[in-house]
Amino acid sequence: MRVILLSGGSGKRLWPLSNDSRSKQFLKVLSDEDGQQESMVQRVWKQLKKNNLDNKSIIATGKSQVDMIKSQLDSDIPIVTEPYRRDTFPAIALAATYLYSIQGANLNDVVSVLPVDSFVENRFFDRVKSLEKAIIESDANIALMGVTPTFPSEKYGYIVPERPKSNEDKDYVYVNSFKEKPDKNTAKSLIENNALWNCGVFAFRLGYVIDMLEDKGLPINFEKLSQAYGLLPKNSFDYEVVEKAEKIVALSYEGDWKDLGTWNTLTEEMTNNFIGKGVMDQGVENTNVINELDIPITVLGINNAVVAASPDGILVTDKENSPKVKDYVTKINGRPMYEERRWGWYKVLDYTKYEEGNEVLTKRIGINAGENLSYQIHYKRSETWTVLKGTGEVIINNNRKYVAAGETIKVPLGTKHTIKAISEMEIIEVQTGSELIEEDIKRLYISWNEIMNNL
Amino acid sequence: MRVILLSGGSGKRLWPLSNDSRSKQFLKVLSDEDGQQESMVQRVWKQLKKNNLDNKSIIATGKSQVDMIKSQLDSDIPIVTEPYRRDTFPAIALAATYLYSIQGANLNDVVSVLPVDSFVENRFFDRVKSLEKAIIESDANIALMGVTPTFPSEKYGYIVPERPKSNEDKDYVYVNSFKEKPDKNTAKSLIENNALWNCGVFAFRLGYVIDMLEDKGLPINFEKLSQAYGLLPKNSFDYEVVEKAEKIVALSYEGDWKDLGTWNTLTEEMTNNFIGKGVMDQGVENTNVINELDIPITVLGINNAVVAASPDGILVTDKENSPKVKDYVTKINGRPMYEERRWGWYKVLDYTKYEEGNEVLTKRIGINAGENLSYQIHYKRSETWTVLKGTGEVIINNNRKYVAAGETIKVPLGTKHTIKAISEMEIIEVQTGSELIEEDIKRLYISWNEIMNNL
Repeated sequence: MRVILLSGGSGKRLWPLSNDSRSKQFLKVLSDEDGQQESMVQRVWKQLKKNNLDNKSIIATGKSQVDMIKSQLDSDIPIVTEPYRRDTFPAIALAATYLYSIQGANLNDVVSVLPVDSFVENRFFDRVKSLEKAIIESDANIALMGVTPTFPSEKYGYIVPERPKSNEDKDYVYVNSFKEKPDKNTAKSLIENNALWNCGVFAFRLGYVIDMLEDKGLPINFEKLSQAYGLLPKNSFDYEVVEKAEKIVALSYEGDWKDLGTWNTLTEEMTNNFIGKGVMDQGVENTNVINELDIPITVLGINNAVVAASPDGILVTDKENSPKVKDYVTKINGRPMYEERRWGWYKVLDYTKYEEGNEVLTKRIGINAGENLSYQIHYKRSETWTVLKGTGEVIINNNRKYVAAGETIKVPLGTKHTIKAISEMEIIEVQTGSELIEEDIKRLYISWNEIMNNL
Repeated sequence: MRVILLSGGSGKRLWPLSNDSRSKQFLKVLSDEDGQQESMVQRVWKQLKKNNLDNKSIIATGKSQVDMIKSQLDSDIPIVTEPYRRDTFPAIALAATYLYSIQGANLNDVVSVLPVDSFVENRFFDRVKSLEKAIIESDANIALMGVTPTFPSEKYGYIVPERPKSNEDKDYVYVNSFKEKPDKNTAKSLIENNALWNCGVFAFRLGYVIDMLEDKGLPINFEKLSQAYGLLPKNSFDYEVVEKAEKIVALSYEGDWKDLGTWNTLTEEMTNNFIGKGVMDQGVENTNVINELDIPITVLGINNAVVAASPDGILVTDKENSPKVKDYVTKINGRPMYEERRWGWYKVLDYTKYEEGNEVLTKRIGINAGENLSYQIHYKRSETWTVLKGTGEVIINNNRKYVAAGETIKVPLGTKHTIKAISEMEIIEVQTGSELIEEDIKRLYISWNEIMNNL
C-alpha cells in the first residue's frame, strides 16, 4: 500500500498562531508521551512510523509549506509540491503521477489518502491498512473510512450504507449515498441506519486515477502534469471522483477522531494549559494560554477562554466564540511575523513605513550550522546585518569574508549577497528601502559550491 | 497661594502599561473634550491652568519621572527632584525649601499640596483655592480637603469633625480625629456624623513646615536640604505632620473624586473602549482594550474584562480581579521595554542572553529634532546604529560625522559617543556585549556646545 498525506489549509481559524506558511498542522501545541510539545504533522508522522507506513508515504503540499515540513520531519521525506494551490483533486492526481512515473508504483497498488491533521488513535492506522483489503476483495473504485458517530453532529458529512446490508460477513459495507451537514433529526435517523462520519480518508487503486487522467487527455508523467497543472479541474476529489464513482465501499472505525481545526477543539487535546512566558491566577478554570511572544502574559479571573499570542497578533476569546476568529483574519492579515525555513527561521521585530515613503523592517534571523541563505540581489533595499551569535562566511559581489559575533556587514542595494553559518548563527537584519516586499528578491539559483567556484 | 503637585507611585496596579518610569499618571488613556487621548498628569495640569494656578505650581517627583513630566507638560515647569525616593514628608519638605529659598516665597504664603493623579471635576479647584481662606480665617496649622462620601467605603480614610459643630456660619469644620479604612458599619456611622473622605489634598502656611525643619536642626536652604535628604524622617506627611498638628480644619467638596489606581476604576473613566490596533467582536460588553503594541488584538466573547498590552507584557483580566495584578508584577518585572526621555523615546524590540554569556539588545530609538543623547562611554558593549529616518550628527571619540537615513554607524566598546538629531531621527540600535545594564554608561556631563569646542 502507498499513502498520500495531504497537507493543505491556511489555518485562519487558529489565528494568530497559524498563517499562510504555518497552518494549524505545524503548531507545536500537543504533547507526546514524554511531555514534549509536538505538532499535528509530527504526531501523524510518528503514528505512520509506528505502523510501518512511513516508508510508503509521500506528502502532497503547496510551496509555502515545504520548508516547514522539512524542518519538522525528516528532510528526506518525498514531497510532491503543487506548482500553485488549486484543490484536492489536482493535488491527489499530481501525487498519483509521482507514485507512478517517479517512484514506479504499480497500477494495481492501492493508494490511501490521509489529511495530515487527522487526530486519531493509533488503531486508526490498522483500519487504514484494511482499506487495501477492502478494495481488493470488493473490487470497488473507492474505499472510504467512516467514523462510527458518537452524537448526531450537524457539522460533518455522513456516508450512508446500502440497505438491506448485503454482505453480512464482510468487514466493509457498500455505500449508497452521502449527506453533508444534516439537521439534528436527519442526523439521528442517519445514525439509526448505520451511517458513518466521512473523515476524509479513502483508498483507490493507482490505476483508477491514472486512467482518469488519460481519459481527460492529461499527462500521466509527473513533470509534464506539473507543467500542465492549470488544466486539471479545480475541484475537490470528493466532487470530481467520489461522487461519480460506480462502486464505493466503506470501512468503519470506532474510536477517537477529531477535527482540531478551531481553538475550542484544539485546546481540548492540550495537556499543558499554559505554553510560554507568563502566569495564570490560581482560581482560573478551563483557560488555555499559548504565548509565542517574548513578553509575559498575566491572566486573572478569565475562565473558559483561549489567549493566544504570536508575532502576528493576540487573540483573547471565550472558547465558544473561538471559531469566529476566521471572520476577522482577513481584516487583520499582513506580513507573516515568524517563519521557519529550510535554512533556519526568522522573526520580524519591527516594521515601520514612514510618511516620506521609505520603509524599515527589522528581523532576527537564525541560520542553522552549515546552511546558507540563497545568493540574491535586492534592487529596492539595502540591508545591515549585525552578527549576534556564531561564525560564518559572507559573500558580497563574489568577495568572501569571515564574520563572527559583534561584527556588522552592510549589504548595499544591487549587490549579490549571501551568508552561510559555520556554527549556528543569529543575526539582526535591518532592511531599509522604498518597497520591502518578498518580490524584491532576485535569487541566483546556484549552490554554495558554485558560488565558491565563481569567486 | 502656592501649589505643590506630588508625582509619585510605581503604578504596579496598572501593569503592563505602567512601570518604574511610567507611573499610572502618565498613561494616555483618558480623553479630553476634543476626544484626544491624555494622561492624568496632563488632565490635572490643564485644570490648574483653567483655574490660574499653573503659574503658582511646582512639581515634586523622583529622578525617574523627570523626563516623562517634561515630555508630557511644558518643559519649563519648575520641578523639584528628590535625590532619591523616601516618602511624602521628605518630598513636601524639600519642595517647601524650594519655594522658600529658590522662588523666594513668603513664610505667610499658603501652600496647597495635591497628588498629581487626583481625578476630580473642575470645581474641585475652587475648593482648593478656598483652603487658603480657611487657613487664614481659622489660623489652623493644616486645612484638609474632605470629599463628601457617597457610600460607606471600607477602602478610604475618614476625616472626623468635632461635635457639636462649633462654627455653624463657617465654610470649614474643625477636625477631631481620623479613621483609616473602617468596616462598613463604622463607615456608616462615620458618615451619619458628617465625616469626610480624606483625598490627600491639604494646605498649610509655608512657615509652618519651614519652622518644623529648623526645629529639627535641618537646613531650610533647598540645595543644602537636597544634600542632607537622608536626614529627613522617612515618614508620610500624614504621620509626621498632620497627626501631630494641634489645630486642623477641613473643607468639604461635593462632587466626583476618584482614585484611578486600578484597571477597574480607570476603565470606568475611559470613553474609548478600544485604544490601539485590533478589533472587538460586536457582542462584547463592558470590555476595554488598551494596546500599545504594533500587532493587533482580537477580542471575541469576553465581557467585563480588561486587555492591556505593552512592550512589558500582556494582561488579560476580568474587571473585578484586576487589582490583583500587583501581586504578580514583582514576579514578572524586568527591564522597562518602553521609555520616554528628555530627548525622545526608545522601545526594546528584542533581548536575548545566549548560553555562551553574551547578550544582545535591539532597540528602536526616536530622537527629537535638535536633541542629543548624552556623551557617553560603555566598557562592556559595542553598539551598531542604523539610521531609519532623519539626519543628524554623530560624534565618536571627538570625530564628527553627518549621517542620514540608510547609513550604519559602529560604536566600538570604550569609545566616547553621542548622536544629535538635526531633523527628527529614528535609529535601530543593536547592543552586543557581556553585560547590558544601565550601569555600564559612563556619562560625560558636558553640553553639546562643549563637545563641539573640544573637537
